[in-house]
Amino acid sequence: MKACVYRAPGAPLEVAEVPDPIAGPGELVVRVKACGICGSDLHAAGRNFRMPPGTILGHEFSGVVETLGDGVEGFERGDPVGEAQRCREVKLVGFGEVPGAYAELMKTRPASVFKMPPGMSFREAATVEPLVVGLHGLHRAGFQAGENCVVMGAGPIGIATMLWARFAGARAIVVSELSEPRRRLALTMGADAAVDPRMHNPAGKVESLTGAGPQVIFECIGAPGAMAEAIAYAQRSSRVVIIGVCTEDDGFAPITAMSKELDMRFSLGMERAEVEMAIAALASGRVATAPMITHTMGIDDLPKAFAALALPTNQSKVMIEF
Amino acid sequence: MKACVYRAPGAPLEVAEVPDPIAGPGELVVRVKACGICGSDLHAAGRNFRMPPGTILGHEFSGVVETLGDGVEGFERGDPVGEAQRCREVKLVGFGEVPGAYAELMKTRPASVFKMPPGMSFREAATVEPLVVGLHGLHRAGFQAGENCVVMGAGPIGIATMLWARFAGARAIVVSELSEPRRRLALTMGADAAVDPRMHNPAGKVESLTGAGPQVIFECIGAPGAMAEAIAYAQRSSRVVIIGVCTEDDGFAPITAMSKELDMRFSLGMERAEVEMAIAALASGRVATAPMITHTMGIDDLPKAFAALALPTNQSKVMIEF
Amino acid sequence: MKACVYRAPGAPLEVAEVPDPIAGPGELVVRVKACGICGSDLHAAGRNFRMPPGTILGHEFSGVVETLGDGVEGFERGDPVGEAQRCREVKLVGFGEVPGAYAELMKTRPASVFKMPPGMSFREAATVEPLVVGLHGLHRAGFQAGENCVVMGAGPIGIATMLWARFAGARAIVVSELSEPRRRLALTMGADAAVDPRMHNPAGKVESLTGAGPQVIFECIGAPGAMAEAIAYAQRSSRVVIIGVCTEDDGFAPITAMSKELDMRFSLGMERAEVEMAIAALASGRVATAPMITHTMGIDDLPKAFAALALPTNQSKVMIEF
Amino acid sequence: MKACVYRAPGAPLEVAEVPDPIAGPGELVVRVKACGICGSDLHAAGRNFRMPPGTILGHEFSGVVETLGDGVEGFERGDPVGEAQRCREVKLVGFGEVPGAYAELMKTRPASVFKMPPGMSFREAATVEPLVVGLHGLHRAGFQAGENCVVMGAGPIGIATMLWARFAGARAIVVSELSEPRRRLALTMGADAAVDPRMHNPAGKVESLTGAGPQVIFECIGAPGAMAEAIAYAQRSSRVVIIGVCTEDDGFAPITAMSKELDMRFSLGMERAEVEMAIAALASGRVATAPMITHTMGIDDLPKAFAALALPTNQSKVMIEF
Repeated sequence: MKACVYRAPGAPLEVAEVPDPIAGPGELVVRVKACGICGSDLHAAGRNFRMPPGTILGHEFSGVVETLGDGVEGFERGDPVGEAQRCREVKLVGFGEVPGAYAELMKTRPASVFKMPPGMSFREAATVEPLVVGLHGLHRAGFQAGENCVVMGAGPIGIATMLWARFAGARAIVVSELSEPRRRLALTMGADAAVDPRMHNPAGKVESLTGAGPQVIFECIGAPGAMAEAIAYAQRSSRVVIIGVCTEDDGFAPITAMSKELDMRFSLGMERAEVEMAIAALASGRVATAPMITHTMGIDDLPKAFAALALPTNQSKVMIEF
Repeated sequence: MKACVYRAPGAPLEVAEVPDPIAGPGELVVRVKACGICGSDLHAAGRNFRMPPGTILGHEFSGVVETLGDGVEGFERGDPVGEAQRCREVKLVGFGEVPGAYAELMKTRPASVFKMPPGMSFREAATVEPLVVGLHGLHRAGFQAGENCVVMGAGPIGIATMLWARFAGARAIVVSELSEPRRRLALTMGADAAVDPRMHNPAGKVESLTGAGPQVIFECIGAPGAMAEAIAYAQRSSRVVIIGVCTEDDGFAPITAMSKELDMRFSLGMERAEVEMAIAALASGRVATAPMITHTMGIDDLPKAFAALALPTNQSKVMIEF
Repeated sequence: MKACVYRAPGAPLEVAEVPDPIAGPGELVVRVKACGICGSDLHAAGRNFRMPPGTILGHEFSGVVETLGDGVEGFERGDPVGEAQRCREVKLVGFGEVPGAYAELMKTRPASVFKMPPGMSFREAATVEPLVVGLHGLHRAGFQAGENCVVMGAGPIGIATMLWARFAGARAIVVSELSEPRRRLALTMGADAAVDPRMHNPAGKVESLTGAGPQVIFECIGAPGAMAEAIAYAQRSSRVVIIGVCTEDDGFAPITAMSKELDMRFSLGMERAEVEMAIAALASGRVATAPMITHTMGIDDLPKAFAALALPTNQSKVMIEF
Repeated sequence: MKACVYRAPGAPLEVAEVPDPIAGPGELVVRVKACGICGSDLHAAGRNFRMPPGTILGHEFSGVVETLGDGVEGFERGDPVGEAQRCREVKLVGFGEVPGAYAELMKTRPASVFKMPPGMSFREAATVEPLVVGLHGLHRAGFQAGENCVVMGAGPIGIATMLWARFAGARAIVVSELSEPRRRLALTMGADAAVDPRMHNPAGKVESLTGAGPQVIFECIGAPGAMAEAIAYAQRSSRVVIIGVCTEDDGFAPITAMSKELDMRFSLGMERAEVEMAIAALASGRVATAPMITHTMGIDDLPKAFAALALPTNQSKVMIEF
């Protein structure tokens, strides 16, 4: 089959012919229909994460069951399925141990996928994972209806978080984002305002909209300096929820966080109930992720799109389709 | 002016000619445009609450500023205003001490009213108070996006609570209500299901919809037996929020509540921030109360409508208009 | 062996000769050294709980391992052990299904007992279970150091709850108790005050000691009327924790609970971590239960002592010893 | 009067003769009996905080009312008083605006002092403020009886925090501290263990004592690197409470905090109820601070002692006495 293969830290991915996966006992092989590019993929490929050359990345996938290994129950050939595991548990699919879904076929286990409900598209199904990351962040915030928030970053995780804050009855949601097209996307998808933080303080915007500051700051950027920026936007007793994965050291002035008596809550992973809730909300149309998919392409164009995402971008979720 | 006057416990209200109120220092006189009938009014008029004969009930009102007393700032003649005080603080407007809004004119204070935002109708403005009662109950529940709930009763408070649960990202909301028209209303306004509790267990309905039971039971009936019923619907560790005002003694089997380790949270009153949030949500259209107004009439027909509400009813919010 | 046997609802227990228990696979037989009388035993024997005649009650026991069934690991003959299961899960030891510890020997499972740490007496070990009931109630309260509380009832559960409130840094603990000897016991064991509720309001006593009312009311009586009394002692936003098991219907005026916006939290059962903590606190001497054992006797005198406890009593924990 | 005066950033304090303070309307003059050296004093004097030359530092004082300005009620000449304001609000007593208590007399306001209860010594009264800082940190942790914790640092704030964790029913408290005398002090005052973090992991010590890790890490050092160390000691879902004031930038690897899903809670300031509780606990003997006072001296020796504390020290609370 055709797959998109990792060669070395920082090197471009390559499309190559590799052997088809074979479903062992308790395994499924899925014909991939869509697979999103995750920031974790970019991190893993860009730095020396000790992934073996030949790794096939990609875990935000959907597809159709192609073959079933011995002993697999509850699935049939032809079932449409999406991925619902923990993206960031490094020893999982798509990070070296198990080949991922930047390929025509991929091998997985029943516990890692969900059956797509009627009416859900493959594109939507491939967004369940980032959607759940945002939902977990919302739960970490203990977010209450009527609270104001700032969402830092309008990449897929920022958009997902914003969707859930809206779903959960946020009063004002102000997105902070450098890219103008991403700000427009955030507005289209439900933000009350989207500001360029070089020009406007998003917390000030919250206050001008509602007369009160943000109770919650969602940090969805994951780059050095982001914690300090989140702390700056916080008001007294705000909760600052760190969802963006920053793989480098980062710092700030503790005295600022103390003077505001902040709660910083780090968010990672997901609960089974959150996965179910995201699927249900997506299936019912109460949460809609389709507009966050700003670019799709075939597998042959993946290396180029992948490289482009490593730089500052105007895209949100970028996805391959078959 | 014309007013609708209380005479004695259990006796019908009477439309009568009474003197116009005069705005003293720090007071406003408002020309009433709409005023809802609240369950508290029915309780107060039906039993011996020691209200003086001649009391003018009615506190869920909206109208237009007619005259301003000395020293009133921030308001002008002609300003459209709605009521935003604590309905259940008995020493307030409409319960004997200060004449209420079942009248052409009524006297109030700046702190008890809000200026209606552009585009809000007088009808909607008169629903702010019951809307805030539901929001306070939601906050008492510590309701989290994705939770399931049962709402007992589809009167105005039940409907308001259901609207907020929806607003706050409830997964499944099942309304329990004896009246078929009220069940239809609940479905129209956003409930996932509405059941007759004599026929179907609403908690079972939640489970059939989502695979899990209700984390929260909102009791919005306020009659003897309602606590026991709420406890019966609860699952282990549910929160049971008592919003309905039951003025009689009520009981249940503590052992049932113990075996489920329930939290029963009693809800009364409101916070200033909740009033502001309800007004903002109503003004933005994110929460819409208009459909809950099932009947309106002029003041001359109020005594009859008032008497009808004391019996089991198919109505939700009933309102006079001028 | 000699055992004390239940015959019929309301009938006195009888000391009788019964066959020795034999340890089946995975079971232990323990030679009983001490066994407390629990309120649940009194409830079970006094009413028609459908216990088969011949039931041997008693679950708050300690003793020494006598024989081990096949496959039991981690225990040796001679090990001193105490009981640590859920007292109130009715299908457990001592309530009809499995014979209990009002006997010279009793059969149990490794998961239901703990090995006594060095220096713990058999009497103390037999108090672990009521001690954990109090700790679970403390946790249900979310009790914070510096809070004031009222403890209603100075039976073993009330005393245990009081010990933990003290352990957890309560500011003022006022015990409400009808019996004068029990009030003295509560004072000896750490209460700041103990009042007769017919004479003094315990909440008022809290206020006179600290200038503030009780944030938490622990209801450890479990009789009709106790919830209403707890609600009466509460101040605005208090948590009322119901620990006492009331097997009859009970009622109160919901409007009172609403006007204070109370949280009523029902408490039953225990967590494994709570059992471990109680054992550790008892072993370290930070919590001492010995003084709550107000009466001990041999098994021959158990029927009389058991009958006496069904009436209002000045005793706290009553225990048989071998 | 004699006072100890600040001259310039980093320069030694000087004992000098200055004019006696005079009580203006609403003010008190207190004859100082004891005054502790606070870490904030060291920070303020050591760096360029823009304090005017001539500032008299010192805010953790106790003394006797000497004169009362016009309109002061509730105090009489001779009343023993202690300080109970917010140490870290920089515009307060002892930081430039109002002369402090490194002096024979000092001027204050009734709201900033409390009347010492009978039996409290001047030394103890001068420890109320650091004691309350620890209590506030405990409350920020939402500390529950039976939880384990690590306390980083056995200076006065670390000791105070440890005292409250004990008071609040901690299961195991392990103190991490470089200085051997300070570790001995921590053990004397109630820690279960005290380790040198260069030799032993305090979280590992918690686990070896109880079989479980620390739910709470209290950071009471306030130096660069301390946050990273606290994060390293945390287990999954721990709360990390930052109480130590670090006036420089500090950093850590966010990915570590994320992988444990930590809550970092910054703690500063105090509530009136906390002050009252600390006074009550100290007066009752339930919390005892006297042993943490490791060194006292007269005002003439203050400059030397002050300078010594700026370096790593074996002392805990150091105090002047008159």
